[in-house]
Amino acid sequence: MSTSTENILSVSMIVIGDEILNGRTTDLNGSWLSKFLFKKGLELKSLRFIRDNIEEINNALTAAMDESDVIITSGGIGPTVDDKTKITLANFFGKKLIERNDIADIVTENYLRFGRIWARESNFYHFFPEDFIGIKNPKGLAPGIGYYSPDRKLVMSAPGVPREFMAMVDEEFYPLIKKYFGGRLKENFQTVIRTQGVPEEKIFFELCPNLWSQLEIFGKVSSLPHTIGIDIVVSYQGNSEIHKEKNEQIKKLIMSTPIAENVWQWGNTPVNELVLQKAKNKKVTFGFAESCSGGLTSSKITDLSGSSEVFFGSIISYDNSIKVKVLGVNPETIKNFGAVSIETAKEMAEGALKVLKTDYAVSTTGIAGPTGGTAEKPVGMVAIGYASKNKSGAFLFQFPGDRIRLKERFSDKALLTLLELME
Amino acid sequence: MSTSTENILSVSMIVIGDEILNGRTTDLNGSWLSKFLFKKGLELKSLRFIRDNIEEINNALTAAMDESDVIITSGGIGPTVDDKTKITLANFFGKKLIERNDIADIVTENYLRFGRIWARESNFYHFFPEDFIGIKNPKGLAPGIGYYSPDRKLVMSAPGVPREFMAMVDEEFYPLIKKYFGGRLKENFQTVIRTQGVPEEKIFFELCPNLWSQLEIFGKVSSLPHTIGIDIVVSYQGNSEIHKEKNEQIKKLIMSTPIAENVWQWGNTPVNELVLQKAKNKKVTFGFAESCSGGLTSSKITDLSGSSEVFFGSIISYDNSIKVKVLGVNPETIKNFGAVSIETAKEMAEGALKVLKTDYAVSTTGIAGPTGGTAEKPVGMVAIGYASKNKSGAFLFQFPGDRIRLKERFSDKALLTLLELME
Repeated sequence: MSTSTENILSVSMIVIGDEILNGRTTDLNGSWLSKFLFKKGLELKSLRFIRDNIEEINNALTAAMDESDVIITSGGIGPTVDDKTKITLANFFGKKLIERNDIADIVTENYLRFGRIWARESNFYHFFPEDFIGIKNPKGLAPGIGYYSPDRKLVMSAPGVPREFMAMVDEEFYPLIKKYFGGRLKENFQTVIRTQGVPEEKIFFELCPNLWSQLEIFGKVSSLPHTIGIDIVVSYQGNSEIHKEKNEQIKKLIMSTPIAENVWQWGNTPVNELVLQKAKNKKVTFGFAESCSGGLTSSKITDLSGSSEVFFGSIISYDNSIKVKVLGVNPETIKNFGAVSIETAKEMAEGALKVLKTDYAVSTTGIAGPTGGTAEKPVGMVAIGYASKNKSGAFLFQFPGDRIRLKERFSDKALLTLLELME
Repeated sequence: MSTSTENILSVSMIVIGDEILNGRTTDLNGSWLSKFLFKKGLELKSLRFIRDNIEEINNALTAAMDESDVIITSGGIGPTVDDKTKITLANFFGKKLIERNDIADIVTENYLRFGRIWARESNFYHFFPEDFIGIKNPKGLAPGIGYYSPDRKLVMSAPGVPREFMAMVDEEFYPLIKKYFGGRLKENFQTVIRTQGVPEEKIFFELCPNLWSQLEIFGKVSSLPHTIGIDIVVSYQGNSEIHKEKNEQIKKLIMSTPIAENVWQWGNTPVNELVLQKAKNKKVTFGFAESCSGGLTSSKITDLSGSSEVFFGSIISYDNSIKVKVLGVNPETIKNFGAVSIETAKEMAEGALKVLKTDYAVSTTGIAGPTGGTAEKPVGMVAIGYASKNKSGAFLFQFPGDRIRLKERFSDKALLTLLELME
């Protein structure tokens, strides 16, 4: 860790609620906040998940106040009895809970946004700690809670419901951070090099043993395994000029190493977004024939707004009968080479091109496991086919991982194949 | 929070690494561990995400040792220079890093499992703190790190790569916990009631104002908003007898309230698993015609091993041309009623049934946003169609949320529709 982070405005997040610690829900707010703060140039110093319990909230607050300028909490501010955040914060800062008309106004406004009338007797939203800041809720009913302490720490609490949390942080908390700490906001930058086809150890111990220390000249270096390869990340502060300059120098360095040919992206755009951008730029359409990826490739594309302009659809041919009847794969091909084969993958892609009437089609057929693998065709094997007006073909790959991870890898590899196909 | 948790063996987890805090990766280990520990009857007391920095690791260790019996860390034990966990743990407990032959044996074995030969000079895996426990890595190369301290705390460190972390916790850490704390392991139970169609506030303030306190007699109560409704959860310790008894009493109580008709599941099985179980039990096949859910419904089914027995495939008809040409929807239907209509949804389901030759088919057509909404058909509106040999039809629903959340809701609602269809 470099010393460059010492002056950055730092944030600690506390996620309050039993449901994540006991495995009932998966957190979305923490991972969203980490991305949000990074872009805004703030450092997320720590992220704590604690139970909805006064003692633990107090301990976490004490530690967070000690290490950071801004403390953001999520959860525990709803109308039910297990929501303890407001009263705990009030006690923590020695403030009384009082009936406040300004908060009642915010609650009334929150309700009105949903076309509803709030009645004071229906809940305790307007009982609020004295001197605390009432915060609008752009996407829900419960008001957010803010407090700027005498020792210049800004504590803010949002609901745990992700859409409410995210809107409140973006539209209400961030302006408050700017109000109290505006002068200290700086920007963070990263240079990201995304590789495929070489394991992490091989990159840094065999192929490029000096790369790590050479990169450290530019900033903090990390190496991150992703679905279809290793991402090398160099982080530093500065401005867009410095970012551009370092980007170029790092690219020059990487191009002089043996892993240059394994780089599939100089940047950090998810592969589904790259596919969508390229298809829109080239004004071409595409679709998939998915077997082992089971709909995930299509789902990754349709996660993106605007995908309907270029993505026509897919045939999920999980059963071989669909491969034959809908995609027109020759039953002899499946009989002779197997459903998981470059021959079948190629015919699936060709069939999808024809049925969907798109400019490009990519297919997946493989073994996601845990059952169904053989010595010859083990779990993790996938054939990816491609087809366009001018050409068609397929490749065979072998990936590690469990079923969920393999579906991720199969679909990302299919998207990468489509990206290369559109070049 | 009830006092029942005081004697439970408690665990604190520390996730070490910059990549999660700066938003580069989304954590999988923490949410997996929370589920794993809950099933095993251990309490995950807290979950901390910190940077790969000696001071912060020390602070987190101090706090975790203070609150829990078992401390699990992930990340920072690989071969690269930014992996600081081992040396930090050694210093924390005042142990020297020494060259250990027993650890070299574990590393050799880890490598052999991948068909590789480990050379001592290739890295520092075998430099290990004196008195520490070397732990096998069932799915990777780096050995895990364990230490049972004089004050009876068990600290264990696994790699951050999810498949390695999960295998090591399951196969190596849990046996160590049993070895040192076996007598204190107890079981946790939950009674889960999953509802749909009524907002949280309406349940607890309007329809059943006494329900919360009535449920508290049985244990700790939580109310958790999920994609298609509110889950009510009652948690308690005990044995399977007590679990069965409380389940029945709680069911009886709920059945006497107005929300009885909104319960879609007495239990906690994900809707995709329920669909798969029911289809297998009834020996029926199914498929989907997905528009707005864009492949996610199919992907949720194919996430499950064994789905190929009953799930034949889907037509992702994102573009209207696919609805017409592949599914056989009458273009007049789309022209007269729109692509998002019960009429189109019904024809999509009927078309899928015919094309896929399955016993059941369910369709989705809606507006995932953020663009494409109108006053008449706003973002979040979805028509879900169904078809079987005997009947077909469609329903119209309106959901809140952003694009990703709406896709989740559309697909879960489609799965629930299929579940009811198979009744």
